[in-house]
Amino acid sequence: MSNFTDYQRHIGTRPDKFFKGTLFQGQMMLVGINCFEPGQTQAVHDHADQDKVYIVMEGVGRFTVGDDAQDVSAGGVVWAAAGVPHGVTNTGSTRLAVLVCIAPPPEH
Amino acid sequence: MSNFTDYQRHIGTRPDKFFKGTLFQGQMMLVGINCFEPGQTQAVHDHADQDKVYIVMEGVGRFTVGDDAQDVSAGGVVWAAAGVPHGVTNTGSTRLAVLVCIAPPPEH
Repeated sequence: MSNFTDYQRHIGTRPDKFFKGTLFQGQMMLVGINCFEPGQTQAVHDHADQDKVYIVMEGVGRFTVGDDAQDVSAGGVVWAAAGVPHGVTNTGSTRLAVLVCIAPPPEH
Repeated sequence: MSNFTDYQRHIGTRPDKFFKGTLFQGQMMLVGINCFEPGQTQAVHDHADQDKVYIVMEGVGRFTVGDDAQDVSAGGVVWAAAGVPHGVTNTGSTRLAVLVCIAPPPEH
């Protein structure tokens, strides 16, 4: 497996819900992509034992973490520590593409 | 502490070596920034027990992971699994700004 990629190679679309892909997965961390068409949402949820970060690569979305919600666009970085509820809605008119790192990786 | 930021707020410069900053740190993961002026280098090194990912936000650099080396620009994502040697040199003419996620976080 190559250790080199570009987020754009992993972009995808689902009509029914937001798209999820995996770029890399190790023992300690998963690197994934979440793509939201306008209006698509990731419901607020939490991971009791995993830290997570969102890095916005394109588009704009409304991110909720705990009791706070903010609109975040490209270059924005959003942190959801273990146990803190978090979610996203694409509030823009174009695709929202977000890299996510989750540590440790989710079990399947 | 806010859970929301932008990588650009964390950019910095050091004349003598590349700049390192921390955006977020949890129990499971650290999110940091590395900024390289043209010609600055992070020597090849490894972390025996930590997965690491580089996400290039601006500029271009030559990334080494294991036996492979590639030029990577904005949008590129480079994976260094635990134990795999990795390093970077800014081979461009502008700042190279890279977000890094390391899991688990380094001990200090």
